[in-house]
Amino acid sequence: MTSDPVRLGVVGLGRAFALTAPAFAAHPGVRLVAAAAPRAESRRAFETAFSGRTFESVEALCADSDVEAVYVTTPHGMHRDHAIAAARAGKHVLLEKPIAVELDDAEAIVAACESAGVRLIVGPSHSFDAPVEQAAKLIRSGELGRVRMVQALNCTDFLYRPRRPEELRTELGGGVIFSQGVHQVDIVRLLCGGLATSVFARTGAWDPERPTEGAYAALIDFAGGVFASLTYSGYGRFDSDGWQGGVDELGRDKDPGLYGAARRALGAADDETALKAARSFTSMAETPAASHHEHFGPIIAFCEKGDIHLTPDGIEIFGDERRETRPAPFRTARAEVADALVAAVRGGASPLQTGRWGLASLEVCHAMLESAESGRPAALRRQIGVPS
Amino acid sequence: MTSDPVRLGVVGLGRAFALTAPAFAAHPGVRLVAAAAPRAESRRAFETAFSGRTFESVEALCADSDVEAVYVTTPHGMHRDHAIAAARAGKHVLLEKPIAVELDDAEAIVAACESAGVRLIVGPSHSFDAPVEQAAKLIRSGELGRVRMVQALNCTDFLYRPRRPEELRTELGGGVIFSQGVHQVDIVRLLCGGLATSVFARTGAWDPERPTEGAYAALIDFAGGVFASLTYSGYGRFDSDGWQGGVDELGRDKDPGLYGAARRALGAADDETALKAARSFTSMAETPAASHHEHFGPIIAFCEKGDIHLTPDGIEIFGDERRETRPAPFRTARAEVADALVAAVRGGASPLQTGRWGLASLEVCHAMLESAESGRPAALRRQIGVPS
Repeated sequence: MTSDPVRLGVVGLGRAFALTAPAFAAHPGVRLVAAAAPRAESRRAFETAFSGRTFESVEALCADSDVEAVYVTTPHGMHRDHAIAAARAGKHVLLEKPIAVELDDAEAIVAACESAGVRLIVGPSHSFDAPVEQAAKLIRSGELGRVRMVQALNCTDFLYRPRRPEELRTELGGGVIFSQGVHQVDIVRLLCGGLATSVFARTGAWDPERPTEGAYAALIDFAGGVFASLTYSGYGRFDSDGWQGGVDELGRDKDPGLYGAARRALGAADDETALKAARSFTSMAETPAASHHEHFGPIIAFCEKGDIHLTPDGIEIFGDERRETRPAPFRTARAEVADALVAAVRGGASPLQTGRWGLASLEVCHAMLESAESGRPAALRRQIGVPS
Repeated sequence: MTSDPVRLGVVGLGRAFALTAPAFAAHPGVRLVAAAAPRAESRRAFETAFSGRTFESVEALCADSDVEAVYVTTPHGMHRDHAIAAARAGKHVLLEKPIAVELDDAEAIVAACESAGVRLIVGPSHSFDAPVEQAAKLIRSGELGRVRMVQALNCTDFLYRPRRPEELRTELGGGVIFSQGVHQVDIVRLLCGGLATSVFARTGAWDPERPTEGAYAALIDFAGGVFASLTYSGYGRFDSDGWQGGVDELGRDKDPGLYGAARRALGAADDETALKAARSFTSMAETPAASHHEHFGPIIAFCEKGDIHLTPDGIEIFGDERRETRPAPFRTARAEVADALVAAVRGGASPLQTGRWGLASLEVCHAMLESAESGRPAALRRQIGVPS
């Protein structure tokens, strides 16, 4: 493992990059050297912030021989083309969740990366959050016996954040199942060992103005008789962050005065696409200053000898006779994603969140929709376990 | 409606009566006039506290012509005999939840009460808690549009409270499904309109020393496309009361020093049955002093125009742009059960929690076990709606 920073190129300079850029900027093992984006404004912002090269096209970025790895953070429907272009150019790939919308697109991405001999990491995803890894490690250690049940709840304003039209169309990967469910599934799979066997789910699309899934409840079976209950609402009302110390998903102490802000901003906007563009990467100064880990709502793992509550600062363990808090050291938000990238590219280490892992989580998302449609449990066939 | 108090006889002077006695003692519309219990110690305690008559047998109590209504609070397996004895003697019946263990026993109880022309109320149950009724009324008012999803979680030390042997045998009505699930089902049915159509569930029996269900997760479908997710653990570790203002199930501010107390007491006891007997009714002085409503864990109703969180003090409404708290006036714990008894006996009013309502909730409990066994959703056929 050398000390040369990984030379990272970025495809797509939208909201996801704005939220992840601080982790790369702060990490000694990563250097942001290039980016591709269609909007000139975004390219200028990248050049100013990182003194990097920019390109209008993904192809041009992939032809840049200085780039070792490509972070693909374009809309879901473009993941296949962009990830495969990077792989074929011999670049390692860090690919935003979900890996893709369609399972065959995900298969094609995995195959292209395997065939090119490059690493594929699906992330950032909340399964990288340090308290999640901390809880998963504790479970694997056996200290609390086997995990038997997991309960996960998250309530956000997801549906009222500004959206492009396709983000409100399920068949194009819109709605909360693909963008948010995949986080919850990723976390729950990690805690439960990965090998989901079947899913039973109900979904809700309750706002005719935004006619895609905004909520769901699901029960997932795992190998070994473990089961997990997942509930999500993106309708921006009940605030489950109140049960997470008042810390928001991005690890910031929440301002109660901002209750309803997403809906208000959307209601006041003439042009939703413009409102969305305004949330793209503009400078490092506008990135949120987190003081806690990111989180995805209150999650409890019920084990044979104790329960674990994942918090934005670590984990709480509820034993037979006492409670205990174990903090997870905080550096910068998403530092763990940068760690995984460096370990994969420089150390040859395989992250948990490989392409096949991301494909398995995507399969669960599709199975949720299938079960909600059929009224029956949906079987799963592409699951992989957590490596021991 | 006259002002004469309802003359109530009690069958069984165990823990359930100890918890309900204060509501009757404080209510101007109820007078505790008689009781039947096998233990002389319990009978003496009742005589001392209420200057009432006592009997060794249920038959003798039912032959007491001064008794107008009988509160049956004996073990689940005795409900059928005791409720039918009371009905045949022409007494109105207040019957502890669950109405019975077996559905045919429940049917027989309902038929006996209908045939005798007496009122049957199944309770106390947490569906009587004032915040539950407040939330249900708000939903019925239409102010927040239709309810679409409900999320209910409760974590208690149920499995480690002292038990008689049959309370740890599922086939005899032991375990959390019949004793605890029925509360959660009652509440959720009330919020969702009552007409459950199908249940999908997973159960857990994870302590070989106490080999009955201690946990479950379930998804319940209701008429109109409403669905509810229920999770329960009675293994006494994660404390969901922390999300309910630190108030325990009985409406008392919780002492953090009592964490793990049930398990410790059980571990230290030589004789579990004796430990249980010690929790029976002994005097009014030992009943807990509640300062909030009873509750059954955090419950959220997601409606079209706002979400409702049920708290021990009322409800919190999460609207599009603001949050609002609506308190529910508190008198004494379980005052609402006494209200319902008086309204039924003196006013001829039918409570929500009739025998047929209790039968429907019991059916859901059986369906949870059936679904967990079969791996498929279980259909429901005996459901009734909430009267409008």
